[in-house]
Amino acid sequence: MMYQIQVKVMPLKELLDPQGKAVMTGLGNLGLGSIKDVRIGKNITLQVEAASEQEAKKIADDATKKLLANPVMEYYEIHIEQSESAG
Amino acid sequence: MMYQIQVKVMPLKELLDPQGKAVMTGLGNLGLGSIKDVRIGKNITLQVEAASEQEAKKIADDATKKLLANPVMEYYEIHIEQSESAG
Repeated sequence: MMYQIQVKVMPLKELLDPQGKAVMTGLGNLGLGSIKDVRIGKNITLQVEAASEQEAKKIADDATKKLLANPVMEYYEIHIEQSESAG
Repeated sequence: MMYQIQVKVMPLKELLDPQGKAVMTGLGNLGLGSIKDVRIGKNITLQVEAASEQEAKKIADDATKKLLANPVMEYYEIHIEQSESAG
């Protein structure tokens, strides 16, 4: 089975997000001052070939820990979105 | 009211995503060959002050069109996640 998995990687809430702050200033300059905070992270879509949903989630978790997220600065969430039989 | 809004910005399906391809190769080298495709985009969390959910969504849509996404290369999805009374 092929599973589509979304991995959301965001800067930790305790840390400053300078990119987000810069974008917030830019939005303020565009007249969008009602946006009070902006935080910017990554969204990664994975297509995983696995025998079960559990296995697919384990593979995504492994990939995130090994390469996609830096736990010192980021936290992550994994969601299985859809699955389909491999063609 | 303060609304928390997630904006997901992803490269268009028709376009190559070289960053995703590079990460996929890296994952293959780490023994995670069962990951068949990787696409990398942005996830932006906005805190929006607005009178209603509709207004908050409109502000987020405006911000995404004006600054956060490039429609030539990216598509986006907006989700209202939670709301709370402004303190």
